[in-house]
Amino acid sequence: MPASGGESVLSRAVRIFEAFTAEDPSLTVSQVARRSGLHLATASRLVAELVSYGFLTRDRDRRVRVGVRMWELAMRASPVRSLRDAAMPFMEGVHDVVGHHVQLAVLDGEETLFLERLSAPGAVVNYSTVAGRLPLHLSSSGLVLLAHAEPGLRVRVLAGPLPGRTPHSPTPAVRLRRVLAEVRRQGYALCPGYVHEDALAVAAPVRDDRGAVVAALSVIVPNDAAGPSCVPVVRAAARGISRALAAPAAPR
Amino acid sequence: MPASGGESVLSRAVRIFEAFTAEDPSLTVSQVARRSGLHLATASRLVAELVSYGFLTRDRDRRVRVGVRMWELAMRASPVRSLRDAAMPFMEGVHDVVGHHVQLAVLDGEETLFLERLSAPGAVVNYSTVAGRLPLHLSSSGLVLLAHAEPGLRVRVLAGPLPGRTPHSPTPAVRLRRVLAEVRRQGYALCPGYVHEDALAVAAPVRDDRGAVVAALSVIVPNDAAGPSCVPVVRAAARGISRALAAPAAPR
Repeated sequence: MPASGGESVLSRAVRIFEAFTAEDPSLTVSQVARRSGLHLATASRLVAELVSYGFLTRDRDRRVRVGVRMWELAMRASPVRSLRDAAMPFMEGVHDVVGHHVQLAVLDGEETLFLERLSAPGAVVNYSTVAGRLPLHLSSSGLVLLAHAEPGLRVRVLAGPLPGRTPHSPTPAVRLRRVLAEVRRQGYALCPGYVHEDALAVAAPVRDDRGAVVAALSVIVPNDAAGPSCVPVVRAAARGISRALAAPAAPR
Repeated sequence: MPASGGESVLSRAVRIFEAFTAEDPSLTVSQVARRSGLHLATASRLVAELVSYGFLTRDRDRRVRVGVRMWELAMRASPVRSLRDAAMPFMEGVHDVVGHHVQLAVLDGEETLFLERLSAPGAVVNYSTVAGRLPLHLSSSGLVLLAHAEPGLRVRVLAGPLPGRTPHSPTPAVRLRRVLAEVRRQGYALCPGYVHEDALAVAAPVRDDRGAVVAALSVIVPNDAAGPSCVPVVRAAARGISRALAAPAAPR
């Protein structure tokens, strides 16, 4: 359904949404046009139409934001929601006991996408954010998701660039392959200082009713001798979430 | 930017998203076409294009769902997110102490839209769901939001139909007007049996840095003599969230 310029209207609308980020949640129409690579008149017309549907909203100062209606439609029928609903009581329990950060992530494309995070004030350093992404090899959740992904994805990731963040990051490819085998064998990922020297992460797989890994539960705690004691907590909660997913009628 | 039938492509895409609900998160293309009132060929073409952007996905059995990419773009730059991030630690604290349901809601159009809910297994009956809506006069959050809304909205709601759910629901209009005045005067809504005989709800306003009411925090507990003891808990947490919103750089 190509519009005047040969590109479809939907594709342009998608580029408009992609212009908004966590750092810049509100933009002028000129900024939207520049970031999405559209002519100002085109951007202006599409923004006005998306505002009329509630998918975008205008601030008092005429800056544009993503609208609550977009969130509502994305959330109410999203696979994210049933997973998050099943995970939340377990995540709260882990957060009460472990503190710091407790996270739920899924594989999307070739990255870790974080669906949910509970954090305590003053918790240890952590690079993830809700609806944010990290490379698979640079997050404990990503290592769990990659360890259980289809083999083609592992081949592509192992063949690609594998930048490290610390001397402990699981690179190069020969070491990452060993780490992934260990994650599969042990049933969890234990990552001391992989992403930041001061942080230790533990992640375990969440499985659907057919046993397929659909998400990873992780905690980030200080990188000290007490860190590995989180392993059984995370594993037990991840198995609990898996059971809750298999019994969707359970009371919440 | 009208498509062949006179209606814009974006408007048709919006209708496709509206076809998916919490009850029916996955649909065949024929169901999408029927629910969105589009010709099968049109629906089929638009669904395929939205799948190519990750805004919709196809299950193993070719049924269609809302995609994670839609959620990601809606969430990462959404006003929902900063509000929710500020509210979450307070909501967890209230949930630890009060149990049952703790909820965060905003006014959208002329309804209460629920952004977040923490619930305990076996908690008292509750009609709200995350990304779900309730009429303003049939939720404690809605009474708080309506009490502080622009006067035009109050006039419209008071003039409209006001169905009750129980003999205690705040109807007719003359009683609702009194209830709203009380909510403004007291600074909270206390709603014993308004929506279900067995449930008592308490809600308090969350304000932005200019003092405008932007959300409501509420709890739903059993409708017994202990219920009103939640009032100071909810008020304190709502004020805490308001302060956290005014200081967005606070550590989380």
